[in-house]
Amino acid sequence: MDLKKQKDYFKENSKDSNLYLNSIMGSQLFLPQGFFLNGINSGIADRKKRDIALIHSEVPCVAAGLFTKNRVKAAPVIISKKHLRNGRAQAILVNSGCANACTGNRGMEDAQMMAYDLACQLGIKKEDVLLASTGVIGRFLPMSRVKQGIRKIAETMGSPSKPQFFAEAIMTTDTIPKIISRQFLTQNRKRAVICGLAKGAGMIHPDLATLLCFIITDIDIHKSLLQRSLMTATERSFNSLTIDGDTSTNDSVFVLANGRAGNRPINGANQDFLRFQNNLNGVMLGLAELIARDGEGATKLVRIVVRNAESGVSAKKMARHIASSSLVKTALYGSDPNWGRLMAAIGSSGVRIDPQRIDIYFGKLQVTRNGEPASYSERKANRILKKREVKIVIDLKQGKGEAEVYTCDLTPDYVKINSCYST
Amino acid sequence: MDLKKQKDYFKENSKDSNLYLNSIMGSQLFLPQGFFLNGINSGIADRKKRDIALIHSEVPCVAAGLFTKNRVKAAPVIISKKHLRNGRAQAILVNSGCANACTGNRGMEDAQMMAYDLACQLGIKKEDVLLASTGVIGRFLPMSRVKQGIRKIAETMGSPSKPQFFAEAIMTTDTIPKIISRQFLTQNRKRAVICGLAKGAGMIHPDLATLLCFIITDIDIHKSLLQRSLMTATERSFNSLTIDGDTSTNDSVFVLANGRAGNRPINGANQDFLRFQNNLNGVMLGLAELIARDGEGATKLVRIVVRNAESGVSAKKMARHIASSSLVKTALYGSDPNWGRLMAAIGSSGVRIDPQRIDIYFGKLQVTRNGEPASYSERKANRILKKREVKIVIDLKQGKGEAEVYTCDLTPDYVKINSCYST
Repeated sequence: MDLKKQKDYFKENSKDSNLYLNSIMGSQLFLPQGFFLNGINSGIADRKKRDIALIHSEVPCVAAGLFTKNRVKAAPVIISKKHLRNGRAQAILVNSGCANACTGNRGMEDAQMMAYDLACQLGIKKEDVLLASTGVIGRFLPMSRVKQGIRKIAETMGSPSKPQFFAEAIMTTDTIPKIISRQFLTQNRKRAVICGLAKGAGMIHPDLATLLCFIITDIDIHKSLLQRSLMTATERSFNSLTIDGDTSTNDSVFVLANGRAGNRPINGANQDFLRFQNNLNGVMLGLAELIARDGEGATKLVRIVVRNAESGVSAKKMARHIASSSLVKTALYGSDPNWGRLMAAIGSSGVRIDPQRIDIYFGKLQVTRNGEPASYSERKANRILKKREVKIVIDLKQGKGEAEVYTCDLTPDYVKINSCYST
Repeated sequence: MDLKKQKDYFKENSKDSNLYLNSIMGSQLFLPQGFFLNGINSGIADRKKRDIALIHSEVPCVAAGLFTKNRVKAAPVIISKKHLRNGRAQAILVNSGCANACTGNRGMEDAQMMAYDLACQLGIKKEDVLLASTGVIGRFLPMSRVKQGIRKIAETMGSPSKPQFFAEAIMTTDTIPKIISRQFLTQNRKRAVICGLAKGAGMIHPDLATLLCFIITDIDIHKSLLQRSLMTATERSFNSLTIDGDTSTNDSVFVLANGRAGNRPINGANQDFLRFQNNLNGVMLGLAELIARDGEGATKLVRIVVRNAESGVSAKKMARHIASSSLVKTALYGSDPNWGRLMAAIGSSGVRIDPQRIDIYFGKLQVTRNGEPASYSERKANRILKKREVKIVIDLKQGKGEAEVYTCDLTPDYVKINSCYST
């Protein structure tokens, strides 16, 4: 299926447009000062779909990043890691349509060339360029088109920023672009903005499909604090999508802070830092939710909450295990109140439990009491599971550990989309 | 979907009948001496499908078993474990349609009642009865029907054995009954027989769906050796289906040996023991293959071979990880030669690798050389992947460890079957 067909496919199967509006228009979009964003088509895999995306800051930024833990790393991941060592960057260049992974020396040279070309066009250092790629693994980039694309997008600088074009250009099987922004006042009464743009990761299964996330902010912050806040926010957002551990070859999360807000520079865990962290958490959690809703072929967002576990760590381990069970996810697709599959997933999660204490709730409806069937109306359970948002609560009654994990259902469309991705 | 509809559904979507014939008729069916087998309908979940199955031996048998590692264990698993402590059993009673799991004290009482009722009917000790159940979790057994069923099946004793009815009675979403038998000569020139009957385990994903396997043999063997040989054969067969570790609430493998073959009792690792082990391996591997072919909604059997890993353990870890990747399994369904997904699964398997050494083959066609695309014909790759049996070889070029794991593809039918299992 080529990208055009895929696009048509998604158009036919489009989700409710409210979601789109909410993510792009419904809540007001704030942009931090001093950044330029755009996305264009360069013909990497398709004649129409935007596939080259650029973020540029007027001034060099304090920068931080988190990368895939997969032992097979794409060329842009290796280059960006190197470029981030000094905690500084000024631009991010992204392409979709080709992951530039498993491409050996030629792939490394291509990635280096991309950074070099963009740096020349923008008059910045090539070490200040970060790269990200997403798409099919094991194919080489069509470099003449990419080079033309870089020239073309650099020429649009000076025109108004187009964050929605950026968000579209980084999409692969996503059906909606994903942007979330927040603004807040600093202690010296300056307005600071955080804006996040992301692309989704398959069905949010702990496997393979690429997650890319780009955060830009005009806050003035020290690089070690920026890295720390990024790690905190990631743990509470994307790592609650069961994505960590098993990651794709290209997963990357970047944050650029250009200091244009005019706050007093954040050098410690002061009030401004707490506000920044709080808003960064909000932006990244919002993106994580959008990604779960927009899982490949997904029809519903599912929250798995594990309560009263021995510890927070074991609660999260169990929630993740349940959220990646194919049998749980297919039952959710069919709105089948088959809580037995939850019990079986609970028992095989590797977490110590007392089966005779476990309570399970669909929303507020209790379906299991002390590991046995509670008396409940199957019709009611079915009605709860039919909603576009489903919350499942598992109460282990052992301790005080709690965790929440987002996922989506597993549908025939997921299989269809993924059975013909590269061809 | 009730069982009748499910049956019709499977009839409409029936696999090639050769497979059925091979498993039941094609290769001659041998039965060990002194055993009676049958399966009947008792109306547990359906008016027609056989749902109570019995194995009975004229004399008490040496017995061994392996059970689910799931922390949530069904009542029949708990009872059977207890009854097996003395290494002796004379009958196995199985029901489908209800797993009797997550049913608390009432479930335990029901299971005990089943063993007691059967023991009374057969005039044996209740401790010599082993139990297995499969079906929906979290429902109570309809005990009046089960009791009638036990009486009914006990009354058929004396009529000829019906192994095919036994195999049908233990099925849930399986589309074909699974029986494999072998005979061999012992050192004192007696004919010994091993016969195995099994039911499948969903899509052979390391999750939930129940695997049941019953082996009967007339060999005369010591109980500790019988347990050891069962563990060996299981490691080489079912544990190569990626089923261990995460198992359902009900998984059980039993073996009964009644000693009627007339061989010199096996008390050590002599010639007869090696022959027995060899044939047991063959029977259980054959059943494992049948189960993989008959995975829920599966269209093909897939063998994942990992070669030249640092150790056999790491080879198996990686092969299992690949075999349970939804993205790999959907690409296989679409016959999409998307080896990038294999590379990504290799990198996220937790096994130390050198990405720049990895070779990947579809059958004999090399698609990846030293972690980069090899030159190959996509048409040819597609043709290989379209077959009903696909072999994928991953050469890590690190050491001498090797492992082979069986799995099947992930299809829209899998999702359909599992989205409405309990309702």
